[in-house]
Amino acid sequence: MPADATIARAALEALRQLLGERLSTAPAVRAHHAKDESYHPPAEPDAVVFPESTAEVAAVVEICAAHRVPMVPFGAGTSLEGHVAALYGGVSIDLGRMDRVLQINAEDLDCRVEAGVTRKQLGRRLADLGLFFPLDPGADATLGGMAATRASGTNAVRYGTMRENVLGLTVVLPDARVIKTGGRARKSSAGYDLTRLFVGSEGTLGVITEVQLRLFGLPEAIAAAVCPFDDLEGAVATAIETIQLAIPVARIELLDEVQIDAVNRYSGLDQPVAPTLFFEFHGSDAGVREAAAAVAEIAARNGGPELRWATDAAAREKLWRARHESYYACLALRPGARGWPTDVCVPISRLADCILETRRDVDDAGLLAPIVGHVGDGNFHLVLVVDPDDEEEMARARRVEERMVERALQMGGTCSGEHGIGFGKIDHLEAEHGDAVEVMRQLKAALDPHGLMNPGKLFRL
Amino acid sequence: MPADATIARAALEALRQLLGERLSTAPAVRAHHAKDESYHPPAEPDAVVFPESTAEVAAVVEICAAHRVPMVPFGAGTSLEGHVAALYGGVSIDLGRMDRVLQINAEDLDCRVEAGVTRKQLGRRLADLGLFFPLDPGADATLGGMAATRASGTNAVRYGTMRENVLGLTVVLPDARVIKTGGRARKSSAGYDLTRLFVGSEGTLGVITEVQLRLFGLPEAIAAAVCPFDDLEGAVATAIETIQLAIPVARIELLDEVQIDAVNRYSGLDQPVAPTLFFEFHGSDAGVREAAAAVAEIAARNGGPELRWATDAAAREKLWRARHESYYACLALRPGARGWPTDVCVPISRLADCILETRRDVDDAGLLAPIVGHVGDGNFHLVLVVDPDDEEEMARARRVEERMVERALQMGGTCSGEHGIGFGKIDHLEAEHGDAVEVMRQLKAALDPHGLMNPGKLFRL
Repeated sequence: MPADATIARAALEALRQLLGERLSTAPAVRAHHAKDESYHPPAEPDAVVFPESTAEVAAVVEICAAHRVPMVPFGAGTSLEGHVAALYGGVSIDLGRMDRVLQINAEDLDCRVEAGVTRKQLGRRLADLGLFFPLDPGADATLGGMAATRASGTNAVRYGTMRENVLGLTVVLPDARVIKTGGRARKSSAGYDLTRLFVGSEGTLGVITEVQLRLFGLPEAIAAAVCPFDDLEGAVATAIETIQLAIPVARIELLDEVQIDAVNRYSGLDQPVAPTLFFEFHGSDAGVREAAAAVAEIAARNGGPELRWATDAAAREKLWRARHESYYACLALRPGARGWPTDVCVPISRLADCILETRRDVDDAGLLAPIVGHVGDGNFHLVLVVDPDDEEEMARARRVEERMVERALQMGGTCSGEHGIGFGKIDHLEAEHGDAVEVMRQLKAALDPHGLMNPGKLFRL
Repeated sequence: MPADATIARAALEALRQLLGERLSTAPAVRAHHAKDESYHPPAEPDAVVFPESTAEVAAVVEICAAHRVPMVPFGAGTSLEGHVAALYGGVSIDLGRMDRVLQINAEDLDCRVEAGVTRKQLGRRLADLGLFFPLDPGADATLGGMAATRASGTNAVRYGTMRENVLGLTVVLPDARVIKTGGRARKSSAGYDLTRLFVGSEGTLGVITEVQLRLFGLPEAIAAAVCPFDDLEGAVATAIETIQLAIPVARIELLDEVQIDAVNRYSGLDQPVAPTLFFEFHGSDAGVREAAAAVAEIAARNGGPELRWATDAAAREKLWRARHESYYACLALRPGARGWPTDVCVPISRLADCILETRRDVDDAGLLAPIVGHVGDGNFHLVLVVDPDDEEEMARARRVEERMVERALQMGGTCSGEHGIGFGKIDHLEAEHGDAVEVMRQLKAALDPHGLMNPGKLFRL
């Protein structure tokens, strides 16, 4: 653990010398860097720095390391388990000014970006080239943050997560060394997979400053469809059969009736208030038609006879924007409340049981908590819409969340499919990985012996 | 470095107590465990053990650790960079008797196997269920060995490598602790990605005893085709365009004319002696037809007007068996010689230059060295067929190999796409990853402070 919770005056002086105006101790700036988008209590850093290059990040880290000052890498602040809270004070390293797209190699379908580039910013640059980067957590997160949290999204069932789509990284280590991991080759068996050690390490092993990404060509044909079902069972069964039959879907998203009601209101959709699947198909014209027909047949058998098509870009855009805004739609259901979004991921054969039992728990507890999920991966989210000041309500919410994670682990799943651990799921990580967490601690200690990098996250030291 | 190159008498006694007849010091057994399938000089272990469970492996490791005896995990011995040579003596841990398929979850498309199960053994078990595991290094390697070396093969362009297809592991650590990594969920953001740290670690961080794998349903339609080209340029250009246009191929393999001549002789094919692509397409009937037509058009434009189809299973099997036997076919070109197979992987836009310059180097050096490759990934192999006792010839071969790696690195590629580092490519790993190798050393030291696990591989300590 960091020895001291407040930043040393000498460190502050050195940082100011280095960065001038790009160091801030203003209350509003510190408050902005104290929390992410979840209900977790904020924890302010003592100072926030805004470096503009890897060399500057290394210089910041060198100063902080010398003075034993905790460091918290900060992207867009859109994580959901308290990842960016400065639990031990120190310096928040905001990568937002490192927002250059360094290289786009259209022929090789890869690119290199600075960590502060956001997914939408990259998307705009790629669209002109007929390319796209498919990963889309709801928020407009930075690609550095997405790498650090092993982010995912609606396209993961077809394109994988950040685990599969990061080819390499530039990382500033806790002792200020700068390394490059991975490369541009599609595959490599040259040494330990450092890239994937840092992907998902949540800022606890170093600061990611550049990311090399896989890209994809825009498909020849794209079609989206919406299908309401008689009940949740039918919707989930349709998702499961689609995956088990290996029908090529690019997206397959579940929204339960509570969530559909929320997005209708918030994003101006007019879907029937029923458990609903959103689909998207990518491929050739013929391939898309074939896959869509196969899915329509499965849905009809499961109480979802009517697939509504959205083939033009505007209609699709409206649909997926509504899906991406679903978290904010949940919050809007209860003004003044906070969101406690949680997610688990299970083997697909257990998905129906996991969702239905969770739905029952929510109803029994009398909570407002829409379910929405990337069901093609076996991954779903529960958004507990709560009043953090109501202790009794929070206790009910906590119990539902704990039971959801216990259930997922018993089914061979994971306590988080894509939100990560932060400090919100530390006990769940321990429950899931047991003795392996001690190995994670050993790796952390090897690279960060003073525990200065994002302390208090992932596990207790 | 291990303090002592020979096994302590006390350790040997304790191992014999534990395993009885399943410990061997017989010269033939030690010699069999001294080397893999490459030209690298053998190095015999002092003893070989044949554990039958994870608990027995842990007991073996505990004894070896207590007596500071080096340990070398051994699968099928089919690696290519000296991975299994016992450079510092000690104990070879042969996992071959851990050959149980523990679990097949057809609905979830995953399975769990002991480390000694071979890929062909698993394939036979899966075929009855309409499933398959796509990774296929030429040899009938064990799945534990394939995980340890991050293996790959002809299907990687469509299905990924062991990096993407291992869901979790059981590992005996250098201090005899047993951990489970990963799980059965398709994705997870719960903690450091220990699974991928061990995948590709070449036995230097612990002994893999169980592997959880992704599986795939057998495609509805499969079609293979062979296409000879006027020249190497045309063949490579066809592969590159196919990938850049994202035409869904399951396999796309290049064999140059030297390699085609070799497989014609060795495996009884009757292909024209010309640079040739082998294709395979997986999908629906319509999808396969569509992809095949698109590829045929590209090939025709590049001097490959005649695609020969192999749609029935027997013809396909003959084709791919020939491809898998290509290494042995190379060796048969020059009886008594040894194979020095090496591989690199580059961004696909550089593949043509990399292959053509390498071909020129080989010809200039007057060496026998067929080229064969998984060109859809930008990955290709050079099999230098050499006489290891001819120092002058070996010097020429070494120069060609070094230039091939330098070229790949300059192009943004990797020194090994799938064969790994072992002790054959230690200097190349250093050239590729520079300061990052020091981080690999730190991770190694954290988990194996006495350097007992497969010492002398990946990097010098």
